[in-house]
Amino acid sequence: MSSLQELVRPELRGQTPYGAPQLDVPVALNTNESSYPVPQVVVDQIARDVAEVAVSLNRYPDREFTRLRELLAGYLRRTTGEPVTAQQVWAANGSNEVLQHIVQAFGGAGRTALGFTPSYSMHPLISERNGTTWVDGLRDADPSKFDLDGDLAVDQTRRHDPELIFLCSPNNPTGTALDLDIVRRVYDATERAIVVVDEAYTEFSREGTPSAVSLLPGRDRLVVSRTMSKAFAFAGARLGYLAAATEFSDLLRLVRLPYHLSTVTQAVACAALEHTDTMLAMVDKIKTTRDDLLEGCAALGLQPVPSDANFVLVGGFDDAAATWQALLDRGVLVRDVGIPHHLRITAGTPEENDTALRALRAVLEGEYA
Amino acid sequence: MSSLQELVRPELRGQTPYGAPQLDVPVALNTNESSYPVPQVVVDQIARDVAEVAVSLNRYPDREFTRLRELLAGYLRRTTGEPVTAQQVWAANGSNEVLQHIVQAFGGAGRTALGFTPSYSMHPLISERNGTTWVDGLRDADPSKFDLDGDLAVDQTRRHDPELIFLCSPNNPTGTALDLDIVRRVYDATERAIVVVDEAYTEFSREGTPSAVSLLPGRDRLVVSRTMSKAFAFAGARLGYLAAATEFSDLLRLVRLPYHLSTVTQAVACAALEHTDTMLAMVDKIKTTRDDLLEGCAALGLQPVPSDANFVLVGGFDDAAATWQALLDRGVLVRDVGIPHHLRITAGTPEENDTALRALRAVLEGEYA
Repeated sequence: MSSLQELVRPELRGQTPYGAPQLDVPVALNTNESSYPVPQVVVDQIARDVAEVAVSLNRYPDREFTRLRELLAGYLRRTTGEPVTAQQVWAANGSNEVLQHIVQAFGGAGRTALGFTPSYSMHPLISERNGTTWVDGLRDADPSKFDLDGDLAVDQTRRHDPELIFLCSPNNPTGTALDLDIVRRVYDATERAIVVVDEAYTEFSREGTPSAVSLLPGRDRLVVSRTMSKAFAFAGARLGYLAAATEFSDLLRLVRLPYHLSTVTQAVACAALEHTDTMLAMVDKIKTTRDDLLEGCAALGLQPVPSDANFVLVGGFDDAAATWQALLDRGVLVRDVGIPHHLRITAGTPEENDTALRALRAVLEGEYA
Repeated sequence: MSSLQELVRPELRGQTPYGAPQLDVPVALNTNESSYPVPQVVVDQIARDVAEVAVSLNRYPDREFTRLRELLAGYLRRTTGEPVTAQQVWAANGSNEVLQHIVQAFGGAGRTALGFTPSYSMHPLISERNGTTWVDGLRDADPSKFDLDGDLAVDQTRRHDPELIFLCSPNNPTGTALDLDIVRRVYDATERAIVVVDEAYTEFSREGTPSAVSLLPGRDRLVVSRTMSKAFAFAGARLGYLAAATEFSDLLRLVRLPYHLSTVTQAVACAALEHTDTMLAMVDKIKTTRDDLLEGCAALGLQPVPSDANFVLVGGFDDAAATWQALLDRGVLVRDVGIPHHLRITAGTPEENDTALRALRAVLEGEYA
């Protein structure tokens, strides 16, 4: 009999599952979660609303998650000033599932997705695990530069002529937001590619950074994906969403599994959206902490990359893997994202920040002792 | 510019989304939900447990859903008497996502899945939408017979030599459970196919019907999928699961999206599993109601198919679509599953049953007037 390892799809053989280690440490700054718990007023609302819907859980959920879409559209209208309708919005169990719906609809065998590396590592994984060929594009001819070069992005778009393009703004794990002019130019460089702008971290952008949502009118192939995991401090609730042309969101019904969003998930997300201001109350504080973290790293002689997100990519380590381990030994868990000499550090509370910076200093002075 | 309809994957062009109409009717007997609400003691537990975890929703969920897997394994041990461990169990947002994980791991472009039609219509949809070629096998040489013919199943398995085989026991939408000897023979007829036994309705089986879970020891390619949507009356919570070899469940980590099960989903499902007896209290009553529905249909001169599920497939309609509409006009929503002269009716409460039977009688006597 064949072993299961031989029966699995060839692309998967010998691979290891995606995922940062889930370790129980005093200071967890590795997955860009918010360090701030959900406010009690929202917890109370969630408990009330879940109790109310729980009695009817014998019935399937609203397959069209109507109220959730309306609240998400309202949030986008309010924060971007753009006239986004509920019909333009789509949602799923985390933005990963939103992205998977896009790949299942527009990718697949014989089709190509282009991204600009380093970027969010789930873009290639979701593409490939759904049969789409991944092309690892360059952000800049100089690999030590992390900002996306517009000319190079356009060139690679024309050269590879993909069916899907992933942009990420602010870019994870490097941190900076994209100039919307680059989004426009990439979009115009192709007549057939779906252009996805992953804005998971957009609420943490520096003042005056516009959202690609403003580019949606007249661009049927443009999609902006978002998540409630980061600025909403709601990673455990698993709610990602997107805005696109109405026809685009309609098409995703063809690939979503029926009733993919549970009644409880819908209720919990709606409760949070009804308390948007409360849920987002820590965003400004996190931005300040991020800037402090960045300055603290620079003061240690490291090279932090400017950030529009709730994390900082820090360069300047002789041996990033050894530093990662030495920090963990001191109770501080950060992320080794595989970029040589760099580590990614989430902006936590000011106290967590201080602990991380103290640990960093100790590690640097002790040469990983 | 190309229209989005032209850009979508070729297989999806012109298709319509899966899904029964979600209509607000007095008697909904179309999606095999339980008609009985979640008991108050479980609602209270859910509200308490969700309130407790809600404060930490800023953190990602336990990616390994450890406690949920333990409770699901315990449930399987208790109900099947088989030594199922937590490591053998896998879960996702509904059994559709569980099945999709299997297809993503073992199917894909250039690979084939075989099922025996009519069966659960999501098996071909999930296969095809993940790039796998679907082969529509026959249940019997005589298409009016709905029981799976073992010799024919073995022949088709050898002939098509698929990578995936879907069996369904009890079969939806026809209703009867499989003889485990057929599962054994199909399994032995191939050395490479993953054999999925979809047991979504198994708790409603007639006395003495064993679960394919008893066949797992020594069969690494066998998988038994289950759901909390039906017997647990928990369709709105979206929790499907499977039992298989530990190595099999381990491999599914390669294709699941990270953190696919939210903290809230895990908490809600665990609360229900802690009250298993309460949640399953209506199963015996639903089985009685199903048998009454079956007899009531027979008394009307219709041809109901024997059922091990919470629904009855009823034959003998001159025009099933017209009958479906006439029943709906009388406030009774049933399912037209596309089998000529047949409709599928969920066993509701005794009162809903009576209403459905009265409506059926009126429609049959009035010739769809």
